[in-house]
Amino acid sequence: GSATAAQSAAQRQAMLTKPRGSLGRLEELAIFLARWQRGMKPSLDHVDVLIFAGSHGIAARGVSAYPTEVTAQMVANFANGGAAINQLAAIAGANLSVTPLEIDKPTADFTVAPAMNEAEFLAAVTAGMRAVVPGVDLITVGEMGIGNTTVASATAAALFGGSGSSWVGRGSGVDDEGLTRKATAVDTALTFHGNALQDPLEALRLVGGRELAAIFGAVLAARLQGVPVVLDGFVATAAAAPLTRLHPNGLAHALAGHVSAEAQHPRLLKLLNLDPILDLGMRLGEGSGACLAVNILRSAIACHNGMASFAEAGVSEN
Amino acid sequence: GSATAAQSAAQRQAMLTKPRGSLGRLEELAIFLARWQRGMKPSLDHVDVLIFAGSHGIAARGVSAYPTEVTAQMVANFANGGAAINQLAAIAGANLSVTPLEIDKPTADFTVAPAMNEAEFLAAVTAGMRAVVPGVDLITVGEMGIGNTTVASATAAALFGGSGSSWVGRGSGVDDEGLTRKATAVDTALTFHGNALQDPLEALRLVGGRELAAIFGAVLAARLQGVPVVLDGFVATAAAAPLTRLHPNGLAHALAGHVSAEAQHPRLLKLLNLDPILDLGMRLGEGSGACLAVNILRSAIACHNGMASFAEAGVSEN
Repeated sequence: GSATAAQSAAQRQAMLTKPRGSLGRLEELAIFLARWQRGMKPSLDHVDVLIFAGSHGIAARGVSAYPTEVTAQMVANFANGGAAINQLAAIAGANLSVTPLEIDKPTADFTVAPAMNEAEFLAAVTAGMRAVVPGVDLITVGEMGIGNTTVASATAAALFGGSGSSWVGRGSGVDDEGLTRKATAVDTALTFHGNALQDPLEALRLVGGRELAAIFGAVLAARLQGVPVVLDGFVATAAAAPLTRLHPNGLAHALAGHVSAEAQHPRLLKLLNLDPILDLGMRLGEGSGACLAVNILRSAIACHNGMASFAEAGVSEN
Repeated sequence: GSATAAQSAAQRQAMLTKPRGSLGRLEELAIFLARWQRGMKPSLDHVDVLIFAGSHGIAARGVSAYPTEVTAQMVANFANGGAAINQLAAIAGANLSVTPLEIDKPTADFTVAPAMNEAEFLAAVTAGMRAVVPGVDLITVGEMGIGNTTVASATAAALFGGSGSSWVGRGSGVDDEGLTRKATAVDTALTFHGNALQDPLEALRLVGGRELAAIFGAVLAARLQGVPVVLDGFVATAAAAPLTRLHPNGLAHALAGHVSAEAQHPRLLKLLNLDPILDLGMRLGEGSGACLAVNILRSAIACHNGMASFAEAGVSEN
């Protein structure tokens, strides 16, 4: 990011016709976008809502309320415009881009094997990196993949420690037995992979999934290109989390679009020092909370770019 | 509102391609709009952002960080498109309607006299009622008026009890001495008007202001016409609060667009059982937080009206 651009943006905010700081988070968001877009007046003309879909071997262990075929069915629903994210992207003025990642070929069951071999992992990361196109102003990242809250819990536990039961939640709506199966799956994976999970990228390969690896790749590519990112819920946040293990400021270009109703998302955001923009009890995934936050960002830069200064408007300062 | 419409909307939500309840507050908001618009599929084609401006005798007592001429200057800024609310209304796809209420004629200093006589009060309430035009799908209500957080604190204290110091906050940014002057002004008014403040409408006349009376009128007219309302911050919420004293469900058609950074807004919302949609540390007024929430409502109904059902999309249910 550019400290100079951020400073110019902050100076502009102080001249606009409002008490200083009275737009609260909107002011911070405009300055954040200026920093990462490296200019005083940010733009959101080209916003890409990136959704990655994957299938998971762990789903066979009864960790989801839904059957595994729903992943492909929902990818078709995205293509036909019938899902929540289609409507949300339209309202947010964003382009929806869905990348299915070998969804007819689930990852291995990570309680007994690496979820992905190195070639598979690299292919998924690369697919994510390629989804960030030159000239984009902002990306949001989200996912679809039956079983992937368990994958995210395993990834978070590998990265930050803690037992399976401390990281799992009800996902799309499992009952108490399902919740226990999720915790057991995570604990079994932690034991099976052991010290190999110390390496954050290896953790993502061993207990992650293709859509998580792709999100990691997209967030990394965005950083290399200086593109700000809005993260979605628990799964997307866990997928991006290895970046903070690789570098303490690895997610400095990312915002948390929302805090979801998935049980451990607040904890994960806190560990990453991410303050969510929205808190609306959502737990759908598919990038929905991140996309919703784009409306707030649009409002933030509309004020930042469009408001008159005290001098321009002839308004008295205090 | 229509319980039948709300029920139809809830049934529709249960059929859409997402785990039940996974859109969280967005589902509730869509059902709320269906209830008050009396139809299964709500619309937000015509949204009016209503701003009322007034001047206050109490401002002479040093209760604001800004000089009183700023009210008229900001009304001019609204007309010229330079204020935050102009940008926010454009992003929200809403029409901005600004009603200045005799801003060259401040109310009386309510520590020594009724803020308004009965004719003045009625004129302001009527102006607010008239601002709600036939056929509007939703209104948001906000205000501009140097000194009016003290007015709102006095109104809240009159309606709900408590001392001046328990209801004041820093408004546009007063220092500690200013905060003390605000508390003293409220306490003096409470003593001066005494039992006359027991009547909620009299409270609004005696210690309120023209823009608060107009907001009251607009929220009342909206209820009579079955139009849902989004309230803005502390001042707008205090202005609408007498409706709950007139009838326990008097604000059932209203949403809190946000919780502001003004100190006692959270307390006031709690007393009114209003759960704010956004929490972004804003404290600008001029309807800014309410208008911002319109983007969330648009997203809610876009999902509600536009998503495919499980049957339509061929997605398996759990």
